[in-house]
Amino acid sequence: MSVLVAIGDRDNSKLVSQLQARLPNIHIEQYSQCEDFSKVEFVLAWYAPKELWAQLPNLKVVSSFGAGVDSIDLDLLPEHVEVVRIVDSQLEVDMAEYVLTHVLAQKLQLKEYYQKQAATQWKPNRVLSHNKVAILGFGQLGRACAQRLVDNGFSVSAWAQSHKDVNNVTMYYGEHGLNEMLPNTDYLVCLLPLTENTAGIINKDLLAKLPAHAVLVNAARGQHVIEADLLQALNSDSLRAATLDAFDQEPLPSEHPYWLHPKITITPHCAALSDVNCVIEQIEVSIQCLTNGTPLKNRVDRTKGY
Amino acid sequence: MSVLVAIGDRDNSKLVSQLQARLPNIHIEQYSQCEDFSKVEFVLAWYAPKELWAQLPNLKVVSSFGAGVDSIDLDLLPEHVEVVRIVDSQLEVDMAEYVLTHVLAQKLQLKEYYQKQAATQWKPNRVLSHNKVAILGFGQLGRACAQRLVDNGFSVSAWAQSHKDVNNVTMYYGEHGLNEMLPNTDYLVCLLPLTENTAGIINKDLLAKLPAHAVLVNAARGQHVIEADLLQALNSDSLRAATLDAFDQEPLPSEHPYWLHPKITITPHCAALSDVNCVIEQIEVSIQCLTNGTPLKNRVDRTKGY
Repeated sequence: MSVLVAIGDRDNSKLVSQLQARLPNIHIEQYSQCEDFSKVEFVLAWYAPKELWAQLPNLKVVSSFGAGVDSIDLDLLPEHVEVVRIVDSQLEVDMAEYVLTHVLAQKLQLKEYYQKQAATQWKPNRVLSHNKVAILGFGQLGRACAQRLVDNGFSVSAWAQSHKDVNNVTMYYGEHGLNEMLPNTDYLVCLLPLTENTAGIINKDLLAKLPAHAVLVNAARGQHVIEADLLQALNSDSLRAATLDAFDQEPLPSEHPYWLHPKITITPHCAALSDVNCVIEQIEVSIQCLTNGTPLKNRVDRTKGY
Repeated sequence: MSVLVAIGDRDNSKLVSQLQARLPNIHIEQYSQCEDFSKVEFVLAWYAPKELWAQLPNLKVVSSFGAGVDSIDLDLLPEHVEVVRIVDSQLEVDMAEYVLTHVLAQKLQLKEYYQKQAATQWKPNRVLSHNKVAILGFGQLGRACAQRLVDNGFSVSAWAQSHKDVNNVTMYYGEHGLNEMLPNTDYLVCLLPLTENTAGIINKDLLAKLPAHAVLVNAARGQHVIEADLLQALNSDSLRAATLDAFDQEPLPSEHPYWLHPKITITPHCAALSDVNCVIEQIEVSIQCLTNGTPLKNRVDRTKGY
């Protein structure tokens, strides 16, 4: 049995040696150097080449290299293959801090103050009392952000797939719930997993249901947002501003209209970065579960995609 | 008896009519239109002309128009004159939000991200784990900020004039305490009252005791900071950044070197703005206390200056 590291667009030799040092009895190799695909039972994947999956007759487990599994083509995997993801509790803490900081920065209009400073302009902004945050997606990250915002005096709603009971957070479900939540939102925070059902969810129909003073914070995936619709909403003053950490194409191409848009704040996919030691530890545990025949942790429901 | 409104550099006619409507039996007038100074027993003052005080033989009470009394020349007032200030509980909430937002903005280096965005540069900042905040001044505002920072996981110290017992805040006193606190500080937040003892306290000696990665947040008065010393510390990389809401001269003159300094974030004295209705209500109460002979609220200790 061997473990294959298939992480696109980077040199994985350091990662391979770190894993090899922890698991000396298991053969670990990079995709580009793989000698015998029939021995591969475990793949560590992140934007792996599509053609890989058909070459692995004995594949049993695929582990994502991050919290999301949207980089893995689940449809191309045989049904019996199990998929696991990384769950890093530090990610929750970092994401909650990112979301709180950027919601507060939009409330106090920090970007406007930086712009005024660059123009040597002494002029207080109009004080905004907006304090209603709505969160799309209520997994581990969404719950952590909701709690942090509640603790800071925000009134928090969340839109989830399945029923959740949470103190101090108003829950909404289904399309009807979404339509009810959106008009009552000052800050819309997207923390959804990327699935067939959520791709393109932030489009002109959704944006039209938000008040004109609302702000979008997208800390999930670029593919959740229809870029042209977001630009149209900002340019027609039907949305106040957007803070974006994730983009269709990353790095964001230098000619992209987002870059110099005065109402858009860009961060380079840095809201919550996996700690490599924590990731390696979890991969080690998953490989051990496979070799020992014990149940895997952090399994993904392949029909849901998260 | 009459009440004199002596607030420099603005038209106070609206304020005078608002007060007059609440106190129909008391004569309220502006300094520039005062007919008989000998009748004045109460002055509402904010940067009042220095020559005013010698013209008021029957002055009994001076009320500041804000939380600080540093705009009033206490030395020019006869000893028996009582001084009161405005205490607005919303100020605490707003100041705590300002301080939390700007400490988080410095931790996540938002200004660097805005600068990178303007330069179309996709490059994550180095993640900073700094979480030690030290607060200079531990009055009503300092306590509110400390609590908010503690609630958000920061490790908080404070430097106070007199002994205070507070959960989860490490207290320091006197020059010795200050010297002990400063080297252990990631973010130094100034919320001191402006007095003879605190003017110029943020000078090269103090700044030299902070670590080079430290950040200054001044939400008190411009006169607390020796401007040349702050610029020198930033330019010699012995201080990482500064967020400044208050300045020696306001509005900050357009040729001032602060404006375009890449390490300085400027806000136009907007951290916590008094609510005019709350201010008017307190002035009304103070005038009533004077006319009824009941004890004044929010009295200032003139020897301390706050």
